[in-house]
Amino acid sequence: MASFTIFGTGNMANAIGGVLAAGGASVDYISHNDADAAVTGDTVVLAVPFPAVAEIVASHGAQLAGKTVIDITNPLNFETFDDLVVPEGSSAAAEIQKVLPESRVLKAFNTNFASTLATGKVGDTDSVTTVLVAGEDAAAKADLVAAVTAGGIRAIDAGSLKRAHELEALGFLQLTLAAGEKISWTGGFALNN
Amino acid sequence: MASFTIFGTGNMANAIGGVLAAGGASVDYISHNDADAAVTGDTVVLAVPFPAVAEIVASHGAQLAGKTVIDITNPLNFETFDDLVVPEGSSAAAEIQKVLPESRVLKAFNTNFASTLATGKVGDTDSVTTVLVAGEDAAAKADLVAAVTAGGIRAIDAGSLKRAHELEALGFLQLTLAAGEKISWTGGFALNN
Repeated sequence: MASFTIFGTGNMANAIGGVLAAGGASVDYISHNDADAAVTGDTVVLAVPFPAVAEIVASHGAQLAGKTVIDITNPLNFETFDDLVVPEGSSAAAEIQKVLPESRVLKAFNTNFASTLATGKVGDTDSVTTVLVAGEDAAAKADLVAAVTAGGIRAIDAGSLKRAHELEALGFLQLTLAAGEKISWTGGFALNN
Repeated sequence: MASFTIFGTGNMANAIGGVLAAGGASVDYISHNDADAAVTGDTVVLAVPFPAVAEIVASHGAQLAGKTVIDITNPLNFETFDDLVVPEGSSAAAEIQKVLPESRVLKAFNTNFASTLATGKVGDTDSVTTVLVAGEDAAAKADLVAAVTAGGIRAIDAGSLKRAHELEALGFLQLTLAAGEKISWTGGFALNN
């Protein structure tokens, strides 16, 4: 059985955990400031704001070696809401891979608002929710796609870790559109066939 | 009456021209290599591949001063299909604004596949097509949004010209997903409320 440890206990953590549990995976949670908790899952989801990732790397980095680590962050500069805090051309996922060289880092879930993971729909339409997954390790991506699909949500391989830049641009744009009330927090970008 | 001159005669040029004409605008076309044609429209659409924009700037740049210029390009490196050819953190639209300082450059239509402009739908769903418009000049954006909306297609102001980076990332990602047969060329990213 696939086993996941999710760092974070907010609405993204719960929405992702709900999908994975619905698909039959075992899921446990670690509050992001619980420095002593053991990481038991084979796959780890960093469902925390980007600035909190550094704390998790400091407290639990050694335990993440050999595991698949899923970065869901949108590394916005929340003071300006007009920039990302990662270097131009890079991504949060690529930066996390650099500090966790023995982990298989995937980008996923950053383009999905929490409610769309719970309902399986994007807005008041018949567009189904799609989780976009990027990373270098094809087997790790396939495992995550299978776990999400088992939970009733569509997931696709969106390319190499380099595509995390585009996924984060998409997540950033979606956040600015919702914050600007151009769309609701139950909608967003749907990927339609 | 709003008047548009469209550079280009391909399927994006025709799809955009069709929407604008349906909304009551006058639309004329210039083949991108017709160096002698006069630009009569108040608003100009560069519906050509990104490398052809430089030729239009060389042949018609002086005529574009004082006009709204709409960049629809996705500046992919078509050899790698893995990079853009504009500097990291920048965008085709920002680069075009630099060489046309007396024009009001807007980014628009680069996230829409041609067929979705013709049908008003994204894929086999009830998601309506949305044209995302970015740029500095609020009045120019409002005029374009009005012209597209009059043609039966939803359009929204997606922010400043800086957001062209994110729009081009979205367009790039969508092209890679279609080229990789993850989605069809009649689908793509829909923006749902």
